[in-house]
Amino acid sequence: MSRETTDLTDDPRHSLVIPEPEAVEDLEDLALGDDYALNPDYVEMVIDAADRGDTARLRELVHALEPADVADLMGFLSAGYREEVIPVLDPEWLGEIIAELDDNLREEVLEATPSATLAKALEELDSDDAADVIDDLDEGKRAQVLAAMDEGDRAAIETSLSYEDETAGRLMQREFLAAPQFWTVGQTIDHVRESGDHLPELFFDVYVVDPSFTPVGALPISQLLTNKRETPLAEIMEPVTEITVDMDQEEVAYIFDKYHLISAPVVEPGGRLVGQITVDDIVGVIREEAEEDILALAGVSDAGRDANVVDIVKSRLPWLLLNLVTATIAVSGVAVFQGEIAQLVALAILMPIVSSLGGNAGTQTLAVAVRALASKELTTANARRIVLRELSVGIVNGCTLALVMGTATYLFFGPADHHDKLAIIVGLALIANIFTAAVGGILAPLALAKMGRDPAVSSSIFVTFLTDFTGFFAVLLIAALLLH
Amino acid sequence: MSRETTDLTDDPRHSLVIPEPEAVEDLEDLALGDDYALNPDYVEMVIDAADRGDTARLRELVHALEPADVADLMGFLSAGYREEVIPVLDPEWLGEIIAELDDNLREEVLEATPSATLAKALEELDSDDAADVIDDLDEGKRAQVLAAMDEGDRAAIETSLSYEDETAGRLMQREFLAAPQFWTVGQTIDHVRESGDHLPELFFDVYVVDPSFTPVGALPISQLLTNKRETPLAEIMEPVTEITVDMDQEEVAYIFDKYHLISAPVVEPGGRLVGQITVDDIVGVIREEAEEDILALAGVSDAGRDANVVDIVKSRLPWLLLNLVTATIAVSGVAVFQGEIAQLVALAILMPIVSSLGGNAGTQTLAVAVRALASKELTTANARRIVLRELSVGIVNGCTLALVMGTATYLFFGPADHHDKLAIIVGLALIANIFTAAVGGILAPLALAKMGRDPAVSSSIFVTFLTDFTGFFAVLLIAALLLH
Repeated sequence: MSRETTDLTDDPRHSLVIPEPEAVEDLEDLALGDDYALNPDYVEMVIDAADRGDTARLRELVHALEPADVADLMGFLSAGYREEVIPVLDPEWLGEIIAELDDNLREEVLEATPSATLAKALEELDSDDAADVIDDLDEGKRAQVLAAMDEGDRAAIETSLSYEDETAGRLMQREFLAAPQFWTVGQTIDHVRESGDHLPELFFDVYVVDPSFTPVGALPISQLLTNKRETPLAEIMEPVTEITVDMDQEEVAYIFDKYHLISAPVVEPGGRLVGQITVDDIVGVIREEAEEDILALAGVSDAGRDANVVDIVKSRLPWLLLNLVTATIAVSGVAVFQGEIAQLVALAILMPIVSSLGGNAGTQTLAVAVRALASKELTTANARRIVLRELSVGIVNGCTLALVMGTATYLFFGPADHHDKLAIIVGLALIANIFTAAVGGILAPLALAKMGRDPAVSSSIFVTFLTDFTGFFAVLLIAALLLH
Repeated sequence: MSRETTDLTDDPRHSLVIPEPEAVEDLEDLALGDDYALNPDYVEMVIDAADRGDTARLRELVHALEPADVADLMGFLSAGYREEVIPVLDPEWLGEIIAELDDNLREEVLEATPSATLAKALEELDSDDAADVIDDLDEGKRAQVLAAMDEGDRAAIETSLSYEDETAGRLMQREFLAAPQFWTVGQTIDHVRESGDHLPELFFDVYVVDPSFTPVGALPISQLLTNKRETPLAEIMEPVTEITVDMDQEEVAYIFDKYHLISAPVVEPGGRLVGQITVDDIVGVIREEAEEDILALAGVSDAGRDANVVDIVKSRLPWLLLNLVTATIAVSGVAVFQGEIAQLVALAILMPIVSSLGGNAGTQTLAVAVRALASKELTTANARRIVLRELSVGIVNGCTLALVMGTATYLFFGPADHHDKLAIIVGLALIANIFTAAVGGILAPLALAKMGRDPAVSSSIFVTFLTDFTGFFAVLLIAALLLH
């Protein structure tokens, strides 16, 4: 029945028949807040059970959660409490929970888990997720765990690991549903019923292949249900978007997003079908790539939710030290013009404003450019037009700000003591700096992208340097020219 | 057959049998570059055909593309060329292409399309996508288009529009597959075969409902294929994660990401199943929400790919003007201390470095906090711990930078003319400013989130102001205290 079914909600008797909730159900209701994040009270309940050494209660509390929520719980607990939670986890759950954990927490849990338990836990996962976990183990433990695994699973993981990190080969699972072109819907359904174990736990599309096992089409499995058994697959299949094993995961995510794919076949360079990627793996990639851009633009790497102060300092201090160097270079121009500053202290007040505005204008252009590059709205096809547009925006914004700030400067400082020239100095410097910001903000990420580098990384330090330098230098140079 | 099928790729004869490609196939190969973005040469071919007024060629070029690529093509063309492309589009394609277009391009295409054509095009779309398009029409045209539509489609769209923008009610489609608890796999398959038209084009899960039409479980449709016909649904169904109609789309995306969902049932407040959301709609939401954060942190709104200079200036100038005001306030402290600067011009060189480093440290903290809030890694459950950690990081980074910059200052300026005190002034000011950056960078987004506001918007202008102000003020205040 679809949505035309009889509606019984209006019958008041139904709301009276509430089944007695079981204890576990109760806990599930408590676990998550309205926002589907783990309830802080629930974390307190876990800490309380651990403090009292009540293992039974701890086990009950943990198993009322979904694996993703247990992973969240681990993040909210301090290391001591985590050590108490790990042993109470069911082995069948362990794999899924490990797969959900952040890198540094995962490392901790992997160290605390015996190799044999780990091998069993990983056998429960899809080959891509298991390979991901294995990759985080040190040499020795990795060998132990692989040796303890079932041969088929081990082979699948080793193949997966043979592909580079962050490529389609790593993301794909080796289990999929393929059918020859000449099969009918009925033959395909019968095949599915018979193969059972060889199929992935979840599958969304049937890949139709030619005799060389190259995908020639695909159809969603809902089509197997809605079409007649005697319909040939070749008649109802649709063109397929192939992913090659060495494709970068960011490309894969772009293709899934663009064509609204649920799954896609992965092929070797020769065209042979070797695996599939499903959208649930891609959702994570899209979020991660966008987060990486946010952090890269801010000059910080992700130290992870559970990082300690030292880890975080390590993830931020290098950038700040680099910034110290560039800022020092930027203001070194000021040292040359100490005479001008001593003569006209107001310059010292106005310089930082010019430089700050330039920095902000540069960041705006940069953020838009990085986003447009990621979504391929900015490519070589329209780069010239976009660059010209950004430069025009730089000129318009520069002139507008110059007018506002020049007027304000004149009104505030008045005409005394060369102050009449201040407004002109500031206005011209602002136009120069906002234009420089536009040039740097659009060309730096474009140049990085052209070199095959990530446009988000290191362009912001460059643009900040550029606008700091221009901000100070332009004010003082123009001042030197106008004042003498 | 799954992956054990006979492999024929190694047979060299197969590579020789290349079928003669058809003209359309040729174009498809040309259309996309290696990176799956539209090929710049292809855009040129379209422009060339339009210039020559060769409508037949234009039609051929456009229809060799997927709808998503036609939408991309429109973005790469200037307005004049777009006007020539719109009339050659097949009506059946038009709906899908409109659904893919950016907001401002969409508006242009909608204006250029007669109401009757539009009504027909929208009938081809899922109700959520159609509602999204209708929402962009002006009052008059909306009424015309709705009046020209099939009654069922119109009702679905009007219901969709009755939910607020960016909520689950808007994202959901009203077509889904539901089955009563007491049905078997076989009964469900037979039902699917019989209902045909009432089902959505694509569906991934069967929602199992109780007599009040409340979802009590779900199973992926692959389970219908792999389980025996006589298996009761109640036996193989799994717990279901429900979405309520009024849930914000960012919440929905969070739940899909966290639990790796492919589709989820949408329920009314009473619990009654009214629609479903599928992951392909969510992929776009996740990307958009992350992009919004990047742009918001940079103080710029998305003017769209096809925006003109005026649109872009409008999207950036307000922020820069606000920045001009805050920067002016921040440096106004400097005016009070003109005496100190005149006495010690080196202060004018060092102040901007202190303020720039503070700004960068603040941006780092802010980016990490905004990301952690979005992924719910930062909640009230661990806010206290995270804030304390950030403050500790601020102290460590501040002291390290103070040591480096203090030493450099002493080495550069030497001990003459109060310059021995410069190193101490700069060091203390840096510690104060990096600590202030940590306080502002973590507390501003937390406070905004607590007030139910978007933490990415407006926290960066606040933090920049805070570190600019502290940077200048701390240097000069400490200088005033130490020099007199």
